[in-house]
Amino acid sequence: MSTTIDVPESSNVNLKGKALVVAPARAGGMKKGIAIMDFILRLGAIAASLGAAASMGTSDQTLPFFTQFFQFEASYDSFSAFQFFVITMAMVGGYLVLSLPFSIVSIVRPHATGPRLLLIILDTVFLTLATASAASAASIVYLAHNGDQSTNWLAICNQFGDFCAQTSGAVVSSLVAVVIFVLLIAMSALALRGQ
Amino acid sequence: MSTTIDVPESSNVNLKGKALVVAPARAGGMKKGIAIMDFILRLGAIAASLGAAASMGTSDQTLPFFTQFFQFEASYDSFSAFQFFVITMAMVGGYLVLSLPFSIVSIVRPHATGPRLLLIILDTVFLTLATASAASAASIVYLAHNGDQSTNWLAICNQFGDFCAQTSGAVVSSLVAVVIFVLLIAMSALALRGQ
Repeated sequence: MSTTIDVPESSNVNLKGKALVVAPARAGGMKKGIAIMDFILRLGAIAASLGAAASMGTSDQTLPFFTQFFQFEASYDSFSAFQFFVITMAMVGGYLVLSLPFSIVSIVRPHATGPRLLLIILDTVFLTLATASAASAASIVYLAHNGDQSTNWLAICNQFGDFCAQTSGAVVSSLVAVVIFVLLIAMSALALRGQ
Repeated sequence: MSTTIDVPESSNVNLKGKALVVAPARAGGMKKGIAIMDFILRLGAIAASLGAAASMGTSDQTLPFFTQFFQFEASYDSFSAFQFFVITMAMVGGYLVLSLPFSIVSIVRPHATGPRLLLIILDTVFLTLATASAASAASIVYLAHNGDQSTNWLAICNQFGDFCAQTSGAVVSSLVAVVIFVLLIAMSALALRGQ
């Protein structure tokens, strides 16, 4: 059973008292370091997720030949998995921007557990969303590169080379965001624990 | 800044002392309840993930007609996304079985933060793995049901009806495991916080 006692921080500590507060101060410093790292990683994740959404959303290639009835065109909105990807990645980017103030609160007040708890739960939800969209898009990109024999789905990357390169890049960028999310959750758990 | 003082639990508390320890005892009870719920949810997730792996791994359908050169067969190993799904879901199931002892430790000692921290970090990693495999398989199942116009990939579910039903069931079962993982992480974060 444990109870928590708040010790008010003060700059005018005499020498005798200094030795006593060393350990808690170090724990506070670790928490503050984690909070600052959290903020920086969030900025990286914003860039990765919005970059992924923009790259996927602008993917569009029309082949320079056509028949009387049909023009050969591939764009992200011909695949529902890619549409889902654009929407989800934009949502994840938006969430990350909105989460920045809470991250700043964690820097200013390293011992407040409320913002961290909120962030860890929402991070988990958006990690799931980001991973789902990245994996479903990756699965389509793989099919576009390799095709599938048993169902007679042919690879399209020989024809739509630029389209394939751009969508592959978007998937890689979204996987960077996923890795950052996993790090953010592990760091938040560490900070929640360290009392 | 805060320091933690451990109050030893004792059953021989006189009436005067009882009022003082009510609040911490309630926090311990909440943690114990979360730990028990954690254990039960893990059992459910084991069933969901192993069921998904088994259902996908046994999916195999051969059509009752064939040409001179080709026999029409669909099984999980004709799609790399489905192979990935079987391997990953089996790994997730194995991890969940191995995590049960740590969950039991959390029930017996509700205030130990070590096992919880280990579980929350590993849960996050395996949540990502489970979500990725579920989403990539779902993306293929969607294509098998609907096909894709611009790339001329035809829907195969009219021919391979049983195969489609079985793989769809496996995807649904894996999504149940994903939802349970999100709940487990949120509950662990709540238990890590409540001091």
